[in-house]
Amino acid sequence: MAANGEHQGVVKPPPTPSPLRFSKFFQSNMRILVTGGAGFIGSHLVDKLMENEKNEVIVVDNFFTGSKDNLRKWIGHPRFELIRHDVTEPLLVEVDQIYHLACPASPIFYKYNPVKTIKTNVMGTLNMLGLAKRVGARILLTSTSEVYGDPLEHPQKEEYWGNVNPIGVRSCYDEGKRVAETLMFDYHRQHGIEIRIARIFNTYGPRMNIDDGRVVSNFIAQALRGEALTVQAPGTQTRSFCYVSDMVNGLIRLMEGDNTGPINLGNPGEFTMTELAETVKGLINPSVTIKMVENTPDDPRQRKPDITKANEVLGWEPKIKLRDGLPLMGEDFRLRLGVPKTA
Amino acid sequence: MAANGEHQGVVKPPPTPSPLRFSKFFQSNMRILVTGGAGFIGSHLVDKLMENEKNEVIVVDNFFTGSKDNLRKWIGHPRFELIRHDVTEPLLVEVDQIYHLACPASPIFYKYNPVKTIKTNVMGTLNMLGLAKRVGARILLTSTSEVYGDPLEHPQKEEYWGNVNPIGVRSCYDEGKRVAETLMFDYHRQHGIEIRIARIFNTYGPRMNIDDGRVVSNFIAQALRGEALTVQAPGTQTRSFCYVSDMVNGLIRLMEGDNTGPINLGNPGEFTMTELAETVKGLINPSVTIKMVENTPDDPRQRKPDITKANEVLGWEPKIKLRDGLPLMGEDFRLRLGVPKTA
Repeated sequence: MAANGEHQGVVKPPPTPSPLRFSKFFQSNMRILVTGGAGFIGSHLVDKLMENEKNEVIVVDNFFTGSKDNLRKWIGHPRFELIRHDVTEPLLVEVDQIYHLACPASPIFYKYNPVKTIKTNVMGTLNMLGLAKRVGARILLTSTSEVYGDPLEHPQKEEYWGNVNPIGVRSCYDEGKRVAETLMFDYHRQHGIEIRIARIFNTYGPRMNIDDGRVVSNFIAQALRGEALTVQAPGTQTRSFCYVSDMVNGLIRLMEGDNTGPINLGNPGEFTMTELAETVKGLINPSVTIKMVENTPDDPRQRKPDITKANEVLGWEPKIKLRDGLPLMGEDFRLRLGVPKTA
Repeated sequence: MAANGEHQGVVKPPPTPSPLRFSKFFQSNMRILVTGGAGFIGSHLVDKLMENEKNEVIVVDNFFTGSKDNLRKWIGHPRFELIRHDVTEPLLVEVDQIYHLACPASPIFYKYNPVKTIKTNVMGTLNMLGLAKRVGARILLTSTSEVYGDPLEHPQKEEYWGNVNPIGVRSCYDEGKRVAETLMFDYHRQHGIEIRIARIFNTYGPRMNIDDGRVVSNFIAQALRGEALTVQAPGTQTRSFCYVSDMVNGLIRLMEGDNTGPINLGNPGEFTMTELAETVKGLINPSVTIKMVENTPDDPRQRKPDITKANEVLGWEPKIKLRDGLPLMGEDFRLRLGVPKTA
C-alpha cells in the first residue's frame, strides 16, 4: 500500500467512476433515447436505428407536432418504447446515447407559443444534458441553420457567428437554438459531457406535416390539391433541400464519430423558390399555376450549407437529388391526402 | 338584467380585471422591485428611487456578486425591504414596477458557472415576466452591449443584430442576455406585458467590485496598490465608460417613458485601453508603470454606443466626464482598500 504517495499520508480521493455504459457493462444492447422521435426527422432516425438489432430505442415526444402514426410499425416491438413526455420536465431513464431533436421546427408551430418554444430549447436541453451527465451518455443536439439567421456570408461555414434578430417573431427559435448550443458547450467544458451538435439545413421527405407551412410541403400539398403554388416574394430567395435519409445518415455518423461539432448537415444544391415551384409543378401536377404572395418578417434571403467539414470529418455527403426525392414525398402526401393516382 | 345580451342566454365571461396598480388602487406608495439591487448599479438605482418619498423599494439579491454593504443606509428603513432570493426560483410579491438587473455582469463571475449564468438570464427573466404578468407590473430588463458581441458596425445602433459567438466561453452571458430580450418581447407580444429594455454599456463608479476583473476597477485598484496597470494586448481596443449616476437616470427615464426599447444607455466618449491606463495613472498614482498582457478569447475590439435614440426618446445623455468620475471612484476604492490618503 505504498504506491501513489499513500505512505506519505496523502489521502487519495476515491477514483472517479467512469460513466457506466450499459451496453459495455452488461454486454447488453445499446440503449438510445430519441427526443422528438415521433416527428418527421425523428421517426426516420428511429427506423434507421431499429434496423440494427443491437439497438434498443426509447422515444420521448409530447406530440405537439409529432405523431404516433410515424412510429406505427414499431409500437409493441420488444426493442422499442414510446413515452409521452414533455422535455421541459426532467426525465430519468438509463441510456447510452441521446439524440435530442425535440422542438417544433416549422415557423407556424414554433411561433404558436414562442415562450414555450424557448422553454423547450432551454429547459429541454438543460434536462437532457442533466440526464447525459447523470448516466454518462453521449448527447447529440439537432441545432439548425437558423442560428445563422439572415446570413451575410454565403455559403455558411460552421465558424460563421450568424446575423440573428434577437427581438423578432422568429427569435424564439433562432435564439433558443443558439442558447441550446451554448448550454451544450458549457456542459462539455464544465462537466466533460460528450456532446455532438448538428446544424440541420432544410430537410424534406415523407411524413412531413402536410400543413406546417414549409415551402416543400406547401408546394406538394398545393399541387396535389390542384391549388396555385404560393411563392413568397420575391421568389429569388434560395434554400437548399436535403432528403431525410441523407440527413439521418449524417446524424448517426456524427453521433458515432469523434467530433463535437457544430457540423452543418444539409444539401448544398441551391434552388430559388421559383425554381422549386416549377420543379414541383413539373413532377407532381403540371396543371397548377404559380402565384406570388407577401413574405413573412425576417425571412432569410439565402441559405446554403458549406458541408466541407461534414465531408472531411464524417465522410458524409448527401446522395439523393431533389428530382429523385420529391416524387417519394409526393407519393406519401398523395396517400395521406387521399388524392387518387392519376395516370 | 337584460343588458349586454344576457337576456338572449349568452353567458358573458367575467370582465378581465385590468392590472391592479397598487399605487392607484390604494392611493398608496409606488412599490418597486429591484432584482440584483445589492449590486453595483442596482444599489445606486435604489438610492435614487428611495429619494422619492412616494416610493417603496423591495430588493431581491442572492449576494453572489452583490453586497449588503451597498445598501447599508437603507436597512431598517420603513420604505425599504431586502429579500435574499435567487431569481431562478419564482417570487410572489405585489409590486407596480420591476427593475430586473439580476445577473453577474463581470466575465470573471459570469464565467465562473456558465450554466448558472444562463439559468439566471433565462429562468430569472421568465420568473420576473411571470410576476409582471400576474400583478400587472411594468418590467425593465437591463440587457447589455454584449448582445452586439464583437460588432462589425460602429457605433452600435439598436437596430444592429450583433456578431456573437454562440459556443464561446463568453456565450453564457451574451446569448443568455439575447434570449432574455427575446423572452421580454415574446411576453410583450403574447401577453401584452409592459416591457422596457436597456442595453447597458460599460458603467463605472463607486461600489464596483474591486477584484471583478473589469478594466476600470482593475486599473484603479492596481494604481492604489502601487502595482503596474495591466493593459490587455494590443491596447488599441476601445471602450466607452458611463458614470453610474448617469446610467441610473437613464434607467429611470426609460421605465417612466413610453418606449419599450431596446435603447442603448452608455457614454459615447471612446477611449483606448492604453488611454484609460494613462488617465488612471495620471489621476490616481503617477508613479505606477503600464504593462501589456495577453488578451482573453472573444474580447471585442471596439464598442461604442450610438445614443441618438436615448437622446430623442428619453431626452437623456450622460453628463459626467471620465476625468470627473474616475476620482470619485478612486476615493471609494481608496477607502475600501484602506490605502492612506497621500498629499
